[in-house]
Formats: sequence, structure tokens, C-alpha cells
Amino acid sequence: MQSVSEAFRKEGQRISLVPTMGYLHEGHLALVKKARAIADVVVVSIFVNPIQFGPKEDLAKYPRDFDRDRELLTREKTDIIFFPDAAEMYPDGYSTYVEVKMLGDHLCGLKREGHFLGVATVVAKLFNAVKPHFAVFGQKDYQQLKIIERMVRDLNMDIEVVGYPTVREHDGLAMSSRNTYLGEAERKEALLIHAAMEKVETMFLGGERKSEVLKAEARRVLGAKGSIEIEYVDICDAETLDDLERIDGRALLAVAARVGKTRLIDNTILMEA
Amino acid sequence: MQSVSEAFRKEGQRISLVPTMGYLHEGHLALVKKARAIADVVVVSIFVNPIQFGPKEDLAKYPRDFDRDRELLTREKTDIIFFPDAAEMYPDGYSTYVEVKMLGDHLCGLKREGHFLGVATVVAKLFNAVKPHFAVFGQKDYQQLKIIERMVRDLNMDIEVVGYPTVREHDGLAMSSRNTYLGEAERKEALLIHAAMEKVETMFLGGERKSEVLKAEARRVLGAKGSIEIEYVDICDAETLDDLERIDGRALLAVAARVGKTRLIDNTILMEA
Repeated sequence: MQSVSEAFRKEGQRISLVPTMGYLHEGHLALVKKARAIADVVVVSIFVNPIQFGPKEDLAKYPRDFDRDRELLTREKTDIIFFPDAAEMYPDGYSTYVEVKMLGDHLCGLKREGHFLGVATVVAKLFNAVKPHFAVFGQKDYQQLKIIERMVRDLNMDIEVVGYPTVREHDGLAMSSRNTYLGEAERKEALLIHAAMEKVETMFLGGERKSEVLKAEARRVLGAKGSIEIEYVDICDAETLDDLERIDGRALLAVAARVGKTRLIDNTILMEA
Repeated sequence: MQSVSEAFRKEGQRISLVPTMGYLHEGHLALVKKARAIADVVVVSIFVNPIQFGPKEDLAKYPRDFDRDRELLTREKTDIIFFPDAAEMYPDGYSTYVEVKMLGDHLCGLKREGHFLGVATVVAKLFNAVKPHFAVFGQKDYQQLKIIERMVRDLNMDIEVVGYPTVREHDGLAMSSRNTYLGEAERKEALLIHAAMEKVETMFLGGERKSEVLKAEARRVLGAKGSIEIEYVDICDAETLDDLERIDGRALLAVAARVGKTRLIDNTILMEA
């Protein structure tokens, strides 16, 4: 991979990378289209990164379908699929970890211990392996995006991180590989996440600035059918991710909830026009 | 720095980096000569890295003399001196750290908390800023060299790490910027470090393989004048740095000691011919 990238770079070709865990959906493909639009060479990595899953999480049953992914990526004119295996990425004696402090101590970072350590580490590895000029990430994983941006800036990586808006199903559910876990009834209940966010946005645009009021309303909507287990509803500074009591500037509304056994996350930016 | 390096790389020029904290001595210049021999472009970085100094350590009084360093480097035909300042390297909000586990939990890592976290982090930053093909480090800082090698391998950095043998004064004292702290009497006492290592080597070559026996002899030599404070005398596996009871293969003999207020380290490899 490195020698291929080096050859492209010597020719002055611009490389963009879309890191994924595979089992691609329209959200991923939108990132690939974006990557295609900004660079000459598009690399998509597919790697279900074991170190970002906790011991009780869904590593073993995380959905995988390489042949389908390859077909979808070929259709999007992906130049290279980078598809390392875990033993190659983390051989015996592996010892190095990249930690982004502060930004990790919020939201999902509090619920998934070690998750962002695993994410930052694997992304650093993928960046070094692929040597892209651009890396495209979805805003659905907003905290991840902020952590990667911070890592790139802090470690002087010569890479431009490009965030891309969340792609949604026609009814508003944020696209996620984990949506395939949802049964039919759960799939409908999952819509409450989007409904709750829309309700908060409406109240915000109507002038409400107090986080507690907005969060309480989101919790009320999410709790309407009693089958969703809320992990967090947070309103925080869109850059530092520090909790906000009042919204004054750009805020992030972030939700994590379990629908049945499936953990879903979603977010939106609250900002005055 | 990145755009200069990119331009060299596009032309197919090979870049080598010698990371230093400045106040250069013949040991550094030997690394620069090595860098010169293996690459087309030689970059020397000078940066006294605050995050690798502990709160009680000698950051403020660490010796600095940029003009002298520049003169010495010009004589060695250094192409570029990379000389960032601390506010540029660690701006407000800086949050990202690179940790190499296991190898850090030995030798100096036990005595200087956070030291190797600071070293791995700054070296990752320097590598990303300078984008070298080669990086040359002295074996005098053996544990540092092993940690950097491990980081490069683990994070898939496309860099060849080159270790270079310790350069010594005519009487055997390992060259170090910290030697300038030594008074005349201390300078003589410091020779006991080299004498102790030579004594151990002689015993090893004579057939002694038990670490305790060898370490006891080193401690005896170091303690001969009563003015040296031993921090550690260790015999460990040369790759994993795990303590060895018996030497069987390549072992590292490593010494850290205070001569007056000055902390000095030295090491040598014990290996059957």
C-alpha cells in the first residue's frame, strides 16, 4: 500500500482515504463520492478494528460481507480497497496507542471505555499505511470526527480531514451498519431518535436555549413507547464537547440509545441562523 | 517543512532526520554524518521537548546554544535545521499522546514518569512534520531507540529507524549534553560508569552469566568512591527489556546514576562472540 501511494504521490496525484469497517451502506458511498470529487485516487479501507470494541461489545457479530462491499465500491469507481487483517495490523508484541485526551472524556467515550483509544490508534495506522492527502469521515460519528481532527492537528499529520453530513434513510433514520440488527418493530421505534432531535431543533429555533429543557423534551420523545433505553442525551459545545447549560453559539445535540440490543447514535448541530 | 520535504520526495530525493535537543556534541555529529551517508537530504531537528521532562527535572536549565549548533551543523553540511518552538508544537488545547506500552515499563521509564510518553509523542510529531525516509538515533539512549523502533513498526510509519553506536570521550565517558553540568571532580567520578560496564563485560567474556553476580560487581565499582548515587544497574533482554536472571543470547547492561546533581545513563550489549 505504501509503495503504491508513494508512486501516486510522486506523480502528483492526490489521494483520498475513506476508512470504514465495511458492510457498506449509502452513507459510506456518499463519503466515497465525496472522496472521488476531491482527489485523483480513492482508497477505501475495510477493517473491523478489534481494539475499538469493548469486551462486551459486538466485535464477533459485527456484520461483514466483503464481496458485496467490493461490488458497491467498484460501482463507485474506487481505485484501491485496502483490506488488512487483524493479525497484520496487531501482530504479537503490538504495544503502541494514540490517545486524544479531553475530547474522549465525553459522550460515547464515557460509555465505551477504550473505544476512542482504539479508533485514534487504528486511524493513525491507516493514515501511515495509505498516506492520503484527504481523509473523509461521516459526521454521524461526530465525536470520532472531532477526535481525528484533533489528532491530525496535534501530531502534525499532513492530511486534510473532511467531515461529511450524515446520510439518512427516507424516514430520517441515520444510516448505520448496525441498522441491520433491527427487527421490524425496532426499526420503527428507532425513528424516535430522529423525531426527538427534530423536536429539539424546533424548540431551539423557537428560542429555547436552556439545555435541561431541550434535553428533557428529547428524553420525553425517546421514552414515548417505553422500549428505547436512553444511554445519553447531551447538549455540548460543538468543538470542545464540554457540556453546555445554555446554548450560545454552535452546540451539538447528541443521542445514544439502545433499541432492543442494538446501540444507535445520532447527532445534529444546533446553531442560530 | 512539510512542503519542502514533499518537494524533495517528489524529486526522488531521500531524506534523513536526526532529532536532537540541541547543544550538540560529537555524538550528535556522528549521527549527522551517518544521516549524510545514507540519504540525499539531511534534516536535523533541534527542539528541547518540554513534555519529556518531569516536573522536577532540568527543562529550564537544559543547555541551549543555537548559534553554536548551527555552526556545527553547517560544517557537517546539514541541509535543513528544523527548529520549532514549544508554542508551535504544543498550542493551547493540545491533547494527543502516543504511548508505547511494555517497553516503557523498564529502566528509565520507571524513574522518569511520562518521559517516554513525551518522547514517543514528539518523535511522532517530528516524523510527520519532516517526513523523512530515515531517522537516526544514538544507542546511548537505548530504551528510547527501542521504543521508537516499536512505535514505527506498530503505527506503520514508512520510516527506517537507524541506530548508531554510542560515541565516547577518549577516556570512555559516553557523550551527552548533560556532561557540561559536571564539575572537574565529578567528571572524573563519572568515569566509574564506563569502568563498571567494562568490568562486567570482562566477567561476561570470562563466562559469568548470572545477572546478580554481574550487577553486584557493577554496583561495587560504581560505589568505590561513595560519591555516585546509583539509580539502576540492570541486565535485561536487548529487545523486550525484560529483566534477565541469566544471560542467554543478547542482553543489555544499562546503568543510570547521579554524579552530584547530574543524571547520566550508559549501556552496552553483552553477547557471546
